[in-house]
Amino acid sequence: MGVTGPAGFRAAGVAAAIKGSGARDLALVVNDGPLDAAAGVFTTNKVKAAPVLWSQQVLTQRRLRAVVLNSGGANACTGSGGFQDAHATAEKVGQALGCGAIEVAVCSTGLIGERLPMDAVLSGVDSAANALGGHDQDAENAAEAVLTTDSRPKQVHLQRQGWSVGGFAKGAGMLAPNMATMLAVLTTDAVVEGAVLDSALRSATRVTFGRLDVDGGTSTNDTVLVLASGASGVRITEDELAAGLREASQGLVRQLQADAEGATKAVDITVRGAVSEQEAVHIGRVIAEDNLVKTALFGSDPNWGRIAMALGRADAKIDVDRMEILTNGVSLYADGAPQADRSDADLTGRDIEIVIDLHLGAEQATILSTDLSHAYVEENSAYSS
Amino acid sequence: MGVTGPAGFRAAGVAAAIKGSGARDLALVVNDGPLDAAAGVFTTNKVKAAPVLWSQQVLTQRRLRAVVLNSGGANACTGSGGFQDAHATAEKVGQALGCGAIEVAVCSTGLIGERLPMDAVLSGVDSAANALGGHDQDAENAAEAVLTTDSRPKQVHLQRQGWSVGGFAKGAGMLAPNMATMLAVLTTDAVVEGAVLDSALRSATRVTFGRLDVDGGTSTNDTVLVLASGASGVRITEDELAAGLREASQGLVRQLQADAEGATKAVDITVRGAVSEQEAVHIGRVIAEDNLVKTALFGSDPNWGRIAMALGRADAKIDVDRMEILTNGVSLYADGAPQADRSDADLTGRDIEIVIDLHLGAEQATILSTDLSHAYVEENSAYSS
Repeated sequence: MGVTGPAGFRAAGVAAAIKGSGARDLALVVNDGPLDAAAGVFTTNKVKAAPVLWSQQVLTQRRLRAVVLNSGGANACTGSGGFQDAHATAEKVGQALGCGAIEVAVCSTGLIGERLPMDAVLSGVDSAANALGGHDQDAENAAEAVLTTDSRPKQVHLQRQGWSVGGFAKGAGMLAPNMATMLAVLTTDAVVEGAVLDSALRSATRVTFGRLDVDGGTSTNDTVLVLASGASGVRITEDELAAGLREASQGLVRQLQADAEGATKAVDITVRGAVSEQEAVHIGRVIAEDNLVKTALFGSDPNWGRIAMALGRADAKIDVDRMEILTNGVSLYADGAPQADRSDADLTGRDIEIVIDLHLGAEQATILSTDLSHAYVEENSAYSS
Repeated sequence: MGVTGPAGFRAAGVAAAIKGSGARDLALVVNDGPLDAAAGVFTTNKVKAAPVLWSQQVLTQRRLRAVVLNSGGANACTGSGGFQDAHATAEKVGQALGCGAIEVAVCSTGLIGERLPMDAVLSGVDSAANALGGHDQDAENAAEAVLTTDSRPKQVHLQRQGWSVGGFAKGAGMLAPNMATMLAVLTTDAVVEGAVLDSALRSATRVTFGRLDVDGGTSTNDTVLVLASGASGVRITEDELAAGLREASQGLVRQLQADAEGATKAVDITVRGAVSEQEAVHIGRVIAEDNLVKTALFGSDPNWGRIAMALGRADAKIDVDRMEILTNGVSLYADGAPQADRSDADLTGRDIEIVIDLHLGAEQATILSTDLSHAYVEENSAYSS
């Protein structure tokens, strides 16, 4: 169960011939209420896709009846024509559902710089509206329709006391979101106001989608949306909501990390003993994005010298004589000198834990990342995506 | 001809058994005067190798009689013992040449986190001192002795009116120097003071070694040294010197770019129309380090959308509706919309030119980079380096 897990939601995923492959490529998620509260976080990239610009505008009202999503084209760098395409898609959904375009968010993913085949998109909206349903299969069809280089759909559903959170996400490359990643839609049947939803979503995504860094790439289309139907009748606090959204988001993020392009390792990088959480995040990202660290991990090589090199080029306070580097629990560098022999740290498994203890303060953060493999190079060089 | 091209210099490169392979691994460059002016620029990494800490100390005097360099070990993250090893190496050179350790710079390159085999290093110094000579072969032996994953020595020698500049460099990975790259030694027989040499070296390296960015990695050992013998008797201005050092440095940088680990493309990224040179450099580096851009280039794919994505995440002023993206002279994006079809830009050759015109100001900078290939992943995952 995914987005249709919480009461009050229907979904559909159809093949609209936007992609040449004939795979599902258009998804629709509809909130049947009684509430229509919504919130969103978007890419920090200065180059924003047309659907991001549209959805940001729409979300200022903190109300949504529906989200329409397509794969097969990012509709980014497409000028004013591209923006009109996003608008026309929302209008079409509004007509099909009997609501205004202003109540419809739009998300797109795929190649940057190409206009969408609008005939296919618009007739796809009709097909999707006709296919809407509240079953598991409908949620899965929607989750499948947004995939690009992903190998499988990513869904989540968690039950709370009388209410629940559901969702799906897509994303396999260009993954270093900043308060958002690629595309994700969360749903809940809790009774909450738009402002609370907004605040809870920001606090949840900051420590989940915002801590995944596969290749430093921040997409032009990154979007995380949450819709609340209120259909459970259960009123909850902002803390309860934030905790639920955080757990659901983290469930999706773990799936994104596991399915990242070419990844053969799931690498968790924890920076602790930092003077601020912000510095811990920054250092974790520098290590996560370092190709020499990533290729060593692909080779299962505990080459901590490359980690030390990456640490040293971070724009953060470090003390070479106090910092400590551990891989899979084995301390390899501390007190200014090498510790255990690097062969003591076995990195041959899929899960790798890197811990940096700066021994400077009490703050910490964990960045989720991957290795850099031949398959990453292959997937990203063999064709345009 | 390399470092021994200018009058007043001798060099040697010997096999000292620091490397297991039996290849040359210890180089010595000696300035026979009459002057002994010298200057250096060093890595900006906060984690600095012991030889960097030693050489920075020594260079405060702006005088050098000799430089000793080894491959086969970086002597970085080796604690106070490692610093004593660097000191002992300089002492040994001083004894062999009849000068003080304080007149000897030390450079190391290789794996981080291992102590050097000092018996091999110290007896290697004796062998090198005995092998010193002023012939082309001596310069080439020295250039060869500093190589790690490089496939060939990099040397330069350029003649001016009565004086000349020579040099060698090594570096194939971990290449994103900031005012310095890996190891390079420049020599000149011009008559110049240490302060002028220092200033000219900084201005030359800023726009040469400081503009090469292969993988974002800034080594713990990056060092560029220049030694002036005054043996030509020709006194020159700082401008003449800076121009000579710049041309020699650029000659070495082009060789580093061409021989970078796994590179199948030489990629020049020019950012023009920027509000400041600093922003142009920053944007160029973000594009140069972007794995999605780099893998597209490996695939000869003019996927300008990925360039736009990378541009948009740079911490710099951009205007999406004014910026322009060209590859190999073909404008692919301008005025907020796609221009020529991407297939019009042929990137199948080895040399690729990316131009970003921000249309915001008059400043510009060019970053030299490479693609990201299977061979890069292979070289950096298959063994520790």
